[in-house]
Amino acid sequence: MRSTMQDVPLTVTSILRHAVTVNGDRTVTTALGDGRYRSTSYRELGEQVARLAHALRGVGITGDQRVGTFMWNNVEHLAVYLAAPAMGAVLHTLNIRLSPEQIAYIANEAEDQVIVADLSLAAQLAPVLPMLTTVHTILAVGDGDLTPLQNAGMMVIRYDDALGGRPPEYDWPVLDENTAAAMCYTSGTTGNPKGVVYSHRSTYLHSMSTCTTNVLGIGVEDSVLPIVPMFHANAWGLPYAALMAGADLVLPDRFMDAPSLLNLIGTHRPTVAGAVPTIWNDVLNHLERHPGHDISSLRLVACGGSAVPRSMMEVFQNRYGVRIQQAWGMTETSPVATVAAPVPGVSDETAWTLRASQGRAACGVEVRIVDDEGLPLPHDGKAVGEVEVRGPWVTGSYYLGRDEAKFASGWLRTGDVGRIDPLGYVTLTDRAKDVIKSGGEWISSVELENHLIAHPAVLEASVVGVPDDRWQERPLAVVVLHDGHQVSPQQLREFLTDKVVRWWLPERWTFVDQVPRTSVGKYDKKTIRARHADGEYDVVEYRD
Amino acid sequence: MRSTMQDVPLTVTSILRHAVTVNGDRTVTTALGDGRYRSTSYRELGEQVARLAHALRGVGITGDQRVGTFMWNNVEHLAVYLAAPAMGAVLHTLNIRLSPEQIAYIANEAEDQVIVADLSLAAQLAPVLPMLTTVHTILAVGDGDLTPLQNAGMMVIRYDDALGGRPPEYDWPVLDENTAAAMCYTSGTTGNPKGVVYSHRSTYLHSMSTCTTNVLGIGVEDSVLPIVPMFHANAWGLPYAALMAGADLVLPDRFMDAPSLLNLIGTHRPTVAGAVPTIWNDVLNHLERHPGHDISSLRLVACGGSAVPRSMMEVFQNRYGVRIQQAWGMTETSPVATVAAPVPGVSDETAWTLRASQGRAACGVEVRIVDDEGLPLPHDGKAVGEVEVRGPWVTGSYYLGRDEAKFASGWLRTGDVGRIDPLGYVTLTDRAKDVIKSGGEWISSVELENHLIAHPAVLEASVVGVPDDRWQERPLAVVVLHDGHQVSPQQLREFLTDKVVRWWLPERWTFVDQVPRTSVGKYDKKTIRARHADGEYDVVEYRD
Repeated sequence: MRSTMQDVPLTVTSILRHAVTVNGDRTVTTALGDGRYRSTSYRELGEQVARLAHALRGVGITGDQRVGTFMWNNVEHLAVYLAAPAMGAVLHTLNIRLSPEQIAYIANEAEDQVIVADLSLAAQLAPVLPMLTTVHTILAVGDGDLTPLQNAGMMVIRYDDALGGRPPEYDWPVLDENTAAAMCYTSGTTGNPKGVVYSHRSTYLHSMSTCTTNVLGIGVEDSVLPIVPMFHANAWGLPYAALMAGADLVLPDRFMDAPSLLNLIGTHRPTVAGAVPTIWNDVLNHLERHPGHDISSLRLVACGGSAVPRSMMEVFQNRYGVRIQQAWGMTETSPVATVAAPVPGVSDETAWTLRASQGRAACGVEVRIVDDEGLPLPHDGKAVGEVEVRGPWVTGSYYLGRDEAKFASGWLRTGDVGRIDPLGYVTLTDRAKDVIKSGGEWISSVELENHLIAHPAVLEASVVGVPDDRWQERPLAVVVLHDGHQVSPQQLREFLTDKVVRWWLPERWTFVDQVPRTSVGKYDKKTIRARHADGEYDVVEYRD
Repeated sequence: MRSTMQDVPLTVTSILRHAVTVNGDRTVTTALGDGRYRSTSYRELGEQVARLAHALRGVGITGDQRVGTFMWNNVEHLAVYLAAPAMGAVLHTLNIRLSPEQIAYIANEAEDQVIVADLSLAAQLAPVLPMLTTVHTILAVGDGDLTPLQNAGMMVIRYDDALGGRPPEYDWPVLDENTAAAMCYTSGTTGNPKGVVYSHRSTYLHSMSTCTTNVLGIGVEDSVLPIVPMFHANAWGLPYAALMAGADLVLPDRFMDAPSLLNLIGTHRPTVAGAVPTIWNDVLNHLERHPGHDISSLRLVACGGSAVPRSMMEVFQNRYGVRIQQAWGMTETSPVATVAAPVPGVSDETAWTLRASQGRAACGVEVRIVDDEGLPLPHDGKAVGEVEVRGPWVTGSYYLGRDEAKFASGWLRTGDVGRIDPLGYVTLTDRAKDVIKSGGEWISSVELENHLIAHPAVLEASVVGVPDDRWQERPLAVVVLHDGHQVSPQQLREFLTDKVVRWWLPERWTFVDQVPRTSVGKYDKKTIRARHADGEYDVVEYRD
């Protein structure tokens, strides 16, 4: 029996239409540096989106061709987020922090035809251009110098010139909700980057999920500050969710240092913000040294990408009244899969424990853990296995069928290892490849890091497994201290003693100025292990 | 270009699975009268649902056969809400307030096979049974007497007996999201009732929409009290939304008088409740006469079904701190289509004006007004036309293709007349059939009613058009006064003078003990007009 319901597809076009017709007065604010900014209403954004779609057609975009972006978080990037999918083409956000070779590999594999690029990124983009095989046109945003982009044989047009004189309305096509809306590549810390192709449907459902109270509850009274880059997992879907909700958007462009962000927050008073823990750590350190900044507008700060230290959440909550909410996901999951909000009716201490986990599945997403044979393990808070996920905004394959083994069970193997408690809270203990196997047992590098970061002298800490003759692997702690602080391995071991089992305590310690990071700001453990193998670290060994 | 996203259907089954696995500890409380109640955890509910599905299979339900319900709001009704759709059958909620002939017509047209019925409703159901042509089994809920149901040749089994010994787990089938999940008939104030068939997809999306902040924002910290009957437009989708969110549910069963509701609210402290305005009016009147009830747990009271008087919203807000939020929709729209939350940044007075409208479209729903030729009218707050809606949870036809003319444009013609302002707020001025056409111009009966109800002596007021020799039609005001109050037509006309244009003022007045209502509690204007035509009202004529 078929239902009698209308067959109305879930599309980015309908998010755009709703935003423009029902919330035309809401605004998108883009930072310009030095405290300056520009503001665009949703209505004006809708006109810009229509003009951009005409301009893209004008430079030859047809069918489902890919439109790349090489941009910071700004209103022009938002216009491509809408124009490309709504016209039936595919948005392809390029990660500006990858190497030129990786960027070219990604753009070529996706067969990008056009790249919309910020001229403030011309120096990073220029070395990529000679390697591109399918891109024929660059739309250059901003009033910088075009010269660095002009020697690779492509057409280079200023964004404003391309849009000038185009009609402010566009007859958007009716689209099948299962067609591609956007592409994003994984950051490729293992092997080549792999493409994920989001559908209109998955983008729509993920946005709706983000607007539900149990996820971020974004609504028309919110003002949303996505600090997480729009070239990384759609800025966690915050731009689309804000448009769906009619929330204001505040976009930091390239001004993502702590003082700029704090000024932006103080001036534009966002209620919701999203960024990785290292950004909030920077913000917190700046706040502590420069009191007087006002972050009280923030009702909710979404945080993910790597584990969020409870100590940092506590300081934000207790000293500034700002709730940091951890969420977990990946490029492959659109990205929000789980959210660490506590269940009601628990003690403060339990609530903090739940908030320090990676959280529970958003309705729509299913999460389980499996053993090495792929068999499901109990959700008893004890069994540890690889996390698998399933749901309407989870990818079922990579573009061109890469890395098929990850999808063999019909679920996505996430490469994350952890446990799930009876209430459904997921606690990740490691990336599968970062697990430390010591004497046949697993040590969680993430738990050691979370405890170390809580020590007052420690600014950052990363723990990796390194070869050990007796135990196969043992942990190496790579520690960055706060300016002017001193602490010994012995003292740090003592600090850890009542927090983890004794055989987890690292014997190997190295103190460095900074921990290497990946293109998306995570600890780059592959590089750490390589540097250790090459003897680049001064390692202090300590046993007691 | 197809996306790489997983093909995971949106189904009632996944709402059920999420509720049971992630929120198993949440509870459903059903009132038993006299302050008693029983409580069921989501986990226990999941077991009951599995047992019920086995029982329904056991009595012969196969494929997409219809399972009727004839029930109040209670946990057994909720179990049918889940079991029938999840097993691939179709839930069909029968409106207990219709005439036996109408109920039989509906059950026969839908070919219901089984009816799950509350024994407390046996007297209402018994006269229906001899007219039923397809029902072969009654599952009788409660411990009342079976005798009244036993003389119609059907199998009558107690619900508990049917479920006894059945397994607490069920291997739910994978369903196409576009298949039927549930049916509901319109209340049939014009012509025969017509069937709407909801899909799994539409139910899922409507639930998700209800959980977004801009609609009701139902989350895991909520406790939801659906007073609106579960046999009427799925109780506005509140049960499914609560299950999706992991919110507690509080169900009043048949105890819906104001004192019982106030006791239920005081004891179980729901945060969200939904009912038609007349119920809240009763609650308010009881509260005013019996101070000491505590309704402070309510953060949000959803109200719809007919226009919500601003005066009532103001008293709830200012005297009790309870926010009443008007929403608009119909059986055909699942039902929530628009929600009257004010945009941020407006004055208090503007916010109240917006709250007194029917609100703005939930994202996903499109609303427009059209003239008599079906041409769209501007959203300028002035043009008045028939409201049309479109969206993934709006019906595109009636069951068996009834009343096709309503869908000719690809939108649903709602039969409601109103205007839309530039911010998208819809203000209904009438049902198309209740518009008063006076001298070629329209008078809004609803606006007159809303102003009249604000008079301190007036308890209820309904205005209908009656024949007039000179003007074709003129308004007749049918007024119920508060006990012990007196007011003259002259005084009420004076009260209206600065609120509506002069030629709207009714000359005809009648004072009655109660206004006739339809099966779902709306003013029954067809009956009012008929009674007036039959000379049953003492009409006072007054002109000045």
